[in-house]
Amino acid sequence: MSINIATAFAPATVANVAVGFDVLGFPVDGVGDTVTAERAWPSAGGNPSVSISSIAGVVSGLPLDASRNTAGIVLQHLIRELDLPFGFKLSIDKGIPLSSGMGGSAASSSAALVVANALLDRPLELDALLGFALAGEELASGCAHGDNVAPCLYGGLTILRSVNPVDVVRVPLPAPLFVALVHPHRELDTRTSRSALPVELPLKDYVAQSSRLAAFMVACCTGDFVLMSRSLEDILVEPRRARLIPAFGAVKHAALRAGALGCSISGSGPSVFALCRTQAEASKVGAAMAAAWGAAGVESDVWVSALSQKGARIISTDLEGNR
Amino acid sequence: MSINIATAFAPATVANVAVGFDVLGFPVDGVGDTVTAERAWPSAGGNPSVSISSIAGVVSGLPLDASRNTAGIVLQHLIRELDLPFGFKLSIDKGIPLSSGMGGSAASSSAALVVANALLDRPLELDALLGFALAGEELASGCAHGDNVAPCLYGGLTILRSVNPVDVVRVPLPAPLFVALVHPHRELDTRTSRSALPVELPLKDYVAQSSRLAAFMVACCTGDFVLMSRSLEDILVEPRRARLIPAFGAVKHAALRAGALGCSISGSGPSVFALCRTQAEASKVGAAMAAAWGAAGVESDVWVSALSQKGARIISTDLEGNR
Repeated sequence: MSINIATAFAPATVANVAVGFDVLGFPVDGVGDTVTAERAWPSAGGNPSVSISSIAGVVSGLPLDASRNTAGIVLQHLIRELDLPFGFKLSIDKGIPLSSGMGGSAASSSAALVVANALLDRPLELDALLGFALAGEELASGCAHGDNVAPCLYGGLTILRSVNPVDVVRVPLPAPLFVALVHPHRELDTRTSRSALPVELPLKDYVAQSSRLAAFMVACCTGDFVLMSRSLEDILVEPRRARLIPAFGAVKHAALRAGALGCSISGSGPSVFALCRTQAEASKVGAAMAAAWGAAGVESDVWVSALSQKGARIISTDLEGNR
Repeated sequence: MSINIATAFAPATVANVAVGFDVLGFPVDGVGDTVTAERAWPSAGGNPSVSISSIAGVVSGLPLDASRNTAGIVLQHLIRELDLPFGFKLSIDKGIPLSSGMGGSAASSSAALVVANALLDRPLELDALLGFALAGEELASGCAHGDNVAPCLYGGLTILRSVNPVDVVRVPLPAPLFVALVHPHRELDTRTSRSALPVELPLKDYVAQSSRLAAFMVACCTGDFVLMSRSLEDILVEPRRARLIPAFGAVKHAALRAGALGCSISGSGPSVFALCRTQAEASKVGAAMAAAWGAAGVESDVWVSALSQKGARIISTDLEGNR
C-alpha cells in the first residue's frame, strides 16, 4: 500500500556562515516551511501537473500559480524528469518570512521534494533530491546557489563541495553549537544583496578570507571554540552588505558583547545569526541582538536552537499519521 | 654557561597545497637548508653585525653580502629590534635548489632565526620568530608571504590564519600522509610565477576553490582519504601556472595514475608534489612523476617522506654536540 498524502517540514537555514560564501550553511530548528502533498491523477488524456490549493503562514499574497512558486517549479521539473504518471496537489505553510535571508525559497522547495519523494513508488536518494532542488532554483531565479538547499536537505553544517556532480560534505561537530537567529522586520531582496558584491575580488581578500575558512573548519572538527571565535570573521561579504541592514554594527556588537563566538549576516540578510557555546548563551545573545535593533526602532523575531543535525523530513502521512 | 655556536636545520616546504593559496603549507623532511651561527662581538665602538663566511651546497654564486641574503637580512633585523649587544657569523649549507618552489628562502631565514634564537640569553617564542621571518621576507622581496615560513618553523600542515597578529593553526592529521616532491632541473622565478596570477579573481572561482579548501580541511581532520582525493583540485592557481612548467600535465597525470590522492604545483613551482596514503605509494608516485619528466627530456630529483610534523630545529651546539 502506498502513501497518498504526506506532510514534510523543512527548516530555515543560515547560509555563508561568515567565512563560507556560497559554500557553508546549517539549519535552524523551530522555524521552517511545511508542505503537504497529495497524489493528483490527471483526467483521461490530461498530463500530470502541480496545483497549489493554499499558502498560509507568515507570508501573504504569494501566487497560487505553481509555475511561479519554487515548490511548484521543482515538482513540475520532477514530474517531467521522472516521467511520473501522477502530479501533486500542494498546500504550503510558510514559517519563514519572505526575503529574510533565512532560506525560505530553499525550505519550500526542499519540503516539496521530500514530501513528493515519499509519494513516489521508488523514492530517490538525497543527492538526487538536491540535484532537483538546484535545478528548481536555477529555473526559478536563473542561478543555482545550493548553500541553503544543501543544509536544508541534509541537516548539519554542510559544505557544498560541488554542484555538478552533487557533492555535499557534512562537517563533524564534536562539540555542540548553538545559534541565535534574529530577523528584523525588513525585507532585503536577494538580487539587491547580490548586487552589493563585485563580480571580481582582489586576490588578497581571497587569501585573507580563505585562511579564516580553513581555520574555522579545523575549529569545527576539533571543537576548538577559541579558534572558532577568532576565525569567524567575514572580510569579504559582510563589509559590502552591512550598509543594507539597519543598525547592523550595533547588533553585531551587542552579540559579541553578550558572549557570542561570532556573528554575521545570515545568507543575503537582513537576518543576522550568532554562534554560541550553550543554549543559555544563545538566548542571552539573541535577546541582546533584538534589544539593539529595538533601540534603533526596528522590531525583530528571535529563534534560538542547537545547530540542527536534522534536515527536511516527513512529519506525517496518511498511512502512519503524525510521526 | 651560554651557547656560542649552534647549527639549525630547516626543511623544504610545500606551500599552497593545491587548495590553500598563500594559506596552507607543510614541510618535507630529508631536504632543507642548514645554518651554523656563532656569536660575533663587535670591536670596541663598533656595531653588532651579520657576516656570512660561506655558502655551500646545491647552489652556487650566492652573494656573501649579508644584506643581500634572506638569512642575513632577518638577523640584521633581529639585532636591530632586540638591540642585541652581539652579532652573528654564519655559514650556510643550501640543500634546497634556487627558484624551485620548495621554500628555499623561507628555509634559510627560518634556520637562521632558529639558530640565532638558541644563542640569545632570552630565547623568543615561535610566534615571535615567525614575525621576524615575515619581516625579513618583506625586507628581502617587498612582500611577506608566510605560507612557506609558517610550516617551516612550526612543522606539520599549517594554516597561516593571520599575519598581523601572527596566528598559525596546525591542522590535526589523525591519518599519516606521505608526500612525493619532485624537482625538475629548471628555475622558475617567484615573480614570474606571481605575474601569471591576476590581481582580481572572479567571485565564482573564489566560491569553487573555497568549497574545495573547506572539504580538504575536513578530510584532513577526519582522515578521510576519499574526500581528500576529490577535494585536492586547484581551479584557481594551477590552470594559470601550469604552462610555466614543462610537461606539467603529463607529470600530474602520471602521479594520479600511480595512485596519488592529489597532485599539484609546490609553491610557485616548478617543483610538483603529490600526496599519498603510504610511503610505498609515494615512492611509486615519485618515480612515475620523474619518469614523465624524463620522457619530456627533463631531469629531476625526487624526495619521498612523511608529511613532517617537525619544523626548523637545532641539530647541534657547542655545549651539547650533535643532538
